[in-house]
Amino acid sequence: VQADDSAHLRDLIADFHEADQGALLEALDADLRPRLIELLGDDFDFAALTEVDDAVREEILEELPAETVAEGVKDLDSDDAVYILEGLDKEDQDEILDALPASERVALQKSLDYPEDSAGRLMQADLIAVPPFWTVGQVLAHLREATELPESFFEIFVVDPGHRLLGHLFLDALLRSDRAARIETLMVSDRRRVRVLDDSEEVARLFQRYNLVSAPVVDEADRLVGVITIDDMVDVLQEEADDEIKALGGVRADEELSDTVLYTTRSRFIWLFVNLLTAFLASSVLGLFEGSLEKMVALAVLAPIVASQGGNAATQTMTVAVRALAMRELGPSNAWRITIREALVGLLNGVGFGLLTGVVASLWFRDWNLGIVICLAMVVNLIAGALGGILIPMALERFRADPAVSSGVFVTTVTDVVGFFSFLGIATLWFGLH
Amino acid sequence: VQADDSAHLRDLIADFHEADQGALLEALDADLRPRLIELLGDDFDFAALTEVDDAVREEILEELPAETVAEGVKDLDSDDAVYILEGLDKEDQDEILDALPASERVALQKSLDYPEDSAGRLMQADLIAVPPFWTVGQVLAHLREATELPESFFEIFVVDPGHRLLGHLFLDALLRSDRAARIETLMVSDRRRVRVLDDSEEVARLFQRYNLVSAPVVDEADRLVGVITIDDMVDVLQEEADDEIKALGGVRADEELSDTVLYTTRSRFIWLFVNLLTAFLASSVLGLFEGSLEKMVALAVLAPIVASQGGNAATQTMTVAVRALAMRELGPSNAWRITIREALVGLLNGVGFGLLTGVVASLWFRDWNLGIVICLAMVVNLIAGALGGILIPMALERFRADPAVSSGVFVTTVTDVVGFFSFLGIATLWFGLH
Repeated sequence: VQADDSAHLRDLIADFHEADQGALLEALDADLRPRLIELLGDDFDFAALTEVDDAVREEILEELPAETVAEGVKDLDSDDAVYILEGLDKEDQDEILDALPASERVALQKSLDYPEDSAGRLMQADLIAVPPFWTVGQVLAHLREATELPESFFEIFVVDPGHRLLGHLFLDALLRSDRAARIETLMVSDRRRVRVLDDSEEVARLFQRYNLVSAPVVDEADRLVGVITIDDMVDVLQEEADDEIKALGGVRADEELSDTVLYTTRSRFIWLFVNLLTAFLASSVLGLFEGSLEKMVALAVLAPIVASQGGNAATQTMTVAVRALAMRELGPSNAWRITIREALVGLLNGVGFGLLTGVVASLWFRDWNLGIVICLAMVVNLIAGALGGILIPMALERFRADPAVSSGVFVTTVTDVVGFFSFLGIATLWFGLH
Repeated sequence: VQADDSAHLRDLIADFHEADQGALLEALDADLRPRLIELLGDDFDFAALTEVDDAVREEILEELPAETVAEGVKDLDSDDAVYILEGLDKEDQDEILDALPASERVALQKSLDYPEDSAGRLMQADLIAVPPFWTVGQVLAHLREATELPESFFEIFVVDPGHRLLGHLFLDALLRSDRAARIETLMVSDRRRVRVLDDSEEVARLFQRYNLVSAPVVDEADRLVGVITIDDMVDVLQEEADDEIKALGGVRADEELSDTVLYTTRSRFIWLFVNLLTAFLASSVLGLFEGSLEKMVALAVLAPIVASQGGNAATQTMTVAVRALAMRELGPSNAWRITIREALVGLLNGVGFGLLTGVVASLWFRDWNLGIVICLAMVVNLIAGALGGILIPMALERFRADPAVSSGVFVTTVTDVVGFFSFLGIATLWFGLH
């Protein structure tokens, strides 16, 4: 790239798959990336830009002249074009849209007008729609002549004169039918459809549940406006899982490996700050029992064990609960049963670990009273943890907060506070430390 | 179901999608499930059994007579049939296989002989393969006459006389071509292929990276033996994410909401037991400083804050690292850069939270010496947490252990031990408590 050897680069890279072109872009120094694209010219597949980190893509697009981008975006499927444009600010978007032919511009603008994360943003506007009275032969002739076809497609749709969706037909069924057969006799009409404003995660859930490969998108008047294919849904599902994992770990969903140190520090600060507040809350419980701790330092040594064991058991329950909520497997119909189950699991593990910890603590500090106290506190805290682990995510879901994001803080606050309070409280009473 | 009203049930349920039939089965009492399937007879779609929890499926299959299962499995695509049979023990499998026609039996047996989680288990053996010298017209005629076709397919494959894979052709390309054109002029030959022994997660990664819809599966001699479609990959990707989330939360991958209390308690016990050991380890560090704690009880109150803040920061880093390792975004090429980045993030957040905690601690206990000590300990622990959070998952990956499963224990052990040790150690030196 540095040698500006355009011909040689074309030879090397032009046949790369878009995903590999994307990986190559990411591996390059930031200032060489736009340069490579300009050198490759027509041989650069703009679809490669859908494969790179958001930050990398936005940087590249800002460097490139609007005409180059417009030229590259023009040949893409509309869903890829929207994906590339949606991250830009309004001004840059308009500049690129203005450089496009009118028909493309209108179509892209329409998609961009749908809210983020809606089916309208994800859908592909190019599709094959035919009237029900056509024959298979007519459809085949139409396909052969049509110019503006999607890059690849698996089914054709059947619409009435008002462009309302009547049904669909997979290509394999089309291929295997008699050329004289009328489409309306072949089409499947009981078809799950997606509304243009549906949330992308709901759409992904539908694909997954019914093993769909593609689904038609209709507007409020049931008019066919686009099609969503499973390859986009794979990305949505993956992103959803990714967001959930990051949320559970206290990391923002948009954090990427290419972020700077300062940006990363700032973005993680908030979560840590909330956790610091809860840590102080837990410590203030310890502060309440300062007198007891002074009289019996073994309590200070053992208290973190009760809190940590409760925290880990609660995290197990919470993980199951958050996962089941995300998969729509946990709802009002089984909430009660699952809560009872988790409480019983907490009780059983509480008794088991209570006895175990009790014996070890008795031996360590040669005081079986201490063993009894820590055993009781462990049972209390593991039951509290189990209940917190299941009830807190369900409550957050009820109040339309994302359980994956904030359950962790609340749940470990419960187990820290209950753990310290029960252990030191029981100890103060048992030993008469007041 | 209880009324044995078969005709009425058929009316109600026969038109259900397989996924809905599956959901219905799960909602029923365990003893009514096999009953429902027998009552529905031919109207029950055995594909529904691929949609239920493993435990539920195995229970149902054990109850049903082998002939009924064989009858139901016979009509399925081979990948679904394998999915249903693979969970059964050898004896039950053989009984069902024996009740199948010879050709089906051989094909299923062959798939079941591939190792679990291999491409061979997931693939669909029914596919369309044609020689390169056929014309489009010949292929269309073949498709129209063929009887044993997969339920739906998106591409046809081109093979040589030795059944070695030459290329493929999407149905839309086939439809749009001249009937006299020869397949070899149309086919795409640069085709990513999957080996029959490839791990299913690697296959899923390939689908995701190249946005594939289906991929041919070849044996060691490059002979075409099957095809994997994206709907199966969606399940693999989802399961992978599911496993990772559960592993990070300390829950076994196979835990399901339908498990019993005892089973769940036992399965979670091991993880909690390992955590208990690490909690004792951390507490023994507190024990080392018993003398200091006795002299200055404020240290006992504040120590958990240092440990917990380090644990949370380390969990953030670990989450990012585990995720990046799973997505193959973190490797030898950028390990060094990312480690430096994380250490710097740890340093910056350490200084920030050190100052914050120091000020609060000074005010709380009216002792600015305590503030300085906790500030220093916080910086040390957040850097240690960042390093542990990135280096431990990478080391586990290097030793071929799953970083998602065990990173958490190691990482929080590091932050607990370093947190307690640095805080109490610095305090002991600073205040001369020895």
